[in-house]
Parts: sequence; C-alpha cells; structure tokens
Amino acid sequence: MEAGKRAGLLQGLKGNAVRVTKPSFSTRVPEGDSLPRQVCDHCGFVHYVNPRLVVGCVVVHESRLLLCRRAIEPRRGCWTVPAGFMEERETTAAGAAREALEEARARVEVGPLLALYNVPRISQVHLFYRARLLEPGFGAGEETLEARLFEWDEIPWPELAFPSVRFALRAYAATRERDVFAPWQDDDDSEAV
Amino acid sequence: MEAGKRAGLLQGLKGNAVRVTKPSFSTRVPEGDSLPRQVCDHCGFVHYVNPRLVVGCVVVHESRLLLCRRAIEPRRGCWTVPAGFMEERETTAAGAAREALEEARARVEVGPLLALYNVPRISQVHLFYRARLLEPGFGAGEETLEARLFEWDEIPWPELAFPSVRFALRAYAATRERDVFAPWQDDDDSEAV
Repeated sequence: MEAGKRAGLLQGLKGNAVRVTKPSFSTRVPEGDSLPRQVCDHCGFVHYVNPRLVVGCVVVHESRLLLCRRAIEPRRGCWTVPAGFMEERETTAAGAAREALEEARARVEVGPLLALYNVPRISQVHLFYRARLLEPGFGAGEETLEARLFEWDEIPWPELAFPSVRFALRAYAATRERDVFAPWQDDDDSEAV
Repeated sequence: MEAGKRAGLLQGLKGNAVRVTKPSFSTRVPEGDSLPRQVCDHCGFVHYVNPRLVVGCVVVHESRLLLCRRAIEPRRGCWTVPAGFMEERETTAAGAAREALEEARARVEVGPLLALYNVPRISQVHLFYRARLLEPGFGAGEETLEARLFEWDEIPWPELAFPSVRFALRAYAATRERDVFAPWQDDDDSEAV
C-alpha cells in the first residue's frame, strides 16, 4: 500500500511538472495522522519515511566464521559479517542469503534467527541469522576487499565495522549448541553520528 | 546514511527546480549496484526503496487478548492486534507499544518476540511481541472502531484483518507458557493483491 505511494511520488511529480515548475513540500501532520510528514503542496502526496531493515548472517564453516573486509564506506577496511539493506519483494532470510552471495560469493543455508538489533539513531533495524556454507568456495564480492574464515579466537574484535556485528557474533557464540532459542535483542543507545 | 539520501531527494529536487522545470527519473543500475533503481537524470540522486517494518503486539490481560476493529482501509471493520508501520528513530519494541497506545489507548509492557512474518509480495516484514496491559483501561483510538478483550475461544477468526494477525495469535497460544522461546517465522506466499 505505502510502497505504491512511494512509486506515486515520482509519478505525481512528473504529472505536476506539466503544470508547475517547482516541486514544493511542506512539513505538516496529515489528516488522521499524528506525526509531521513531508506533504506535497500541489497534490497532497505524503512522503512517508520509515526505518530500514539490514539483514545479514553469521556464516559457519566447520568451526570457523566467515568475515568480509569492507571495500566501501562507512568503515572501509573493517570487518563485518555479510549484511546489507533488504531489497523489495524478498524475505528477511532470502535477503541474508543474498548478502552472503553478494559480499562473500558464498552460497549458504540460512538457519535460526540469531539477533535483532535496533539502531534508532539512524532508523535501522538489523536482523542476523545463523547460516552455514553449502559448498566450501567463497571470495570477495564487489563491496569486499577480502573474505576469510576465522576461528573464534582469531576474530579481529577491534577492527569490526559496527556494534551490531559484534553483537551478532556474540549471539552466535552463546547459542551455537542449540537449534531452538530466543534471538538476542539489544538497542544501540549511542548518540554518536 | 540512506535515510539522509531520502531527505536529500526533496532537497535535491528543490535545488534543481531553480534550474529545470521537470523532475525526471530513469530506471537504471547505479555504479557498484546490482539492481535497477530510480535515478534522477539531473543530479544522480538514487531513490532507494526498501521493505517496511510493521510492528505490533499480542496484548494479554489475565486470560484475554486485546483486539481492535479497524476504522480504516484496508480491511475496515475487521479485527486486528495493535500493529502499524514503524516510525523513524524508535525501536521495534517501542513501536509495538506505541501502536497499542494509538490504536487501543492501552499502556503495555512489551515482552518477548513472538513472530516474524514476511510479506514479500508487498515488501513488508511484520514483527509481533507479546505484551501485557499495565493498567486495566483501554479504548478505541483514531484508527479503531472498537477495542475489546477476547477469550481464546471467542476470537472472531473469520473476521481477522490479515494472515499475519492469525499467525501472531497462534504464535502467542503456542508459547504462552514460556518466557524464552524461538519466535515463530513464516512467509506469506500468496499471490493475491
């Protein structure tokens, strides 16, 4: 429903451009709503903005974990588990598997939900699954400098890219012996930008 | 990061409007990306679209569950648990509590994660928590015709608004005796619009 409105933004603006020369949005509370939104002054279109989902996985192969060194900002050169923004028309688990394929050229089987990590400061929700390599091969994808398997004791903790990566790895370690468990949950309360 | 780009859409268009009269977006794969996106022909702004999170809760009071009859489309007149689109700068649990307050005027304490339900057809991810009333009062919010407590045997199953509501209620029933459990997960594979 709302996704359709998004597409409508572009259509609406294109349509308006025939009549008006200047896109113009005001900040106001739409009727029946409770928060201020960006509303088009010409057509009333409401430009809703909602948090984004980041989906990823802790990929296990034998006793080792697959990490990727980031080739892109933010945190270029730091290590992460495969993770990224969820795409339209996929599921959370399919998105996690896609990220493993894109960032580490790894085909994985996605298992249980490991962790739910909120980052309200930047309106993100991170979901991490446990996964395992379906075949031994992997490599560096477009956004990765280097992909590598680490024993737990070898993990470069100070060089991890994000707090949610550390959280996901710790959730993995705490639940590795179990198939059924409650996912770890935490919020990033930091004020840093 | 991407949230900033969203805001930039409006700024970018406003900026461009000084020079050009017609907003114009093309569908193409941005450099370093793998999927076609809407890209501004003037400034190169990429209009990313991502799935939305719906957050809600199964609210328990003694042995009964709190349902709301919807005052708005879609599915006006049908019953739902309090749930809605997550807002910027809140956490998933805070969003679920906010929806209980907005739709059922109910102050709740949010408990464990009950269910994760993907609806890829419309690019939505639904997260439901178990919650309990903090005080006995509740009522119909702006988007609600009527809020009511139901015993399990009284739930109007054929009049539930969405498959995810049924799924969340079943997840609640299956886990009600436990404090620590794996959330139920399912995908809506239907093709209906």
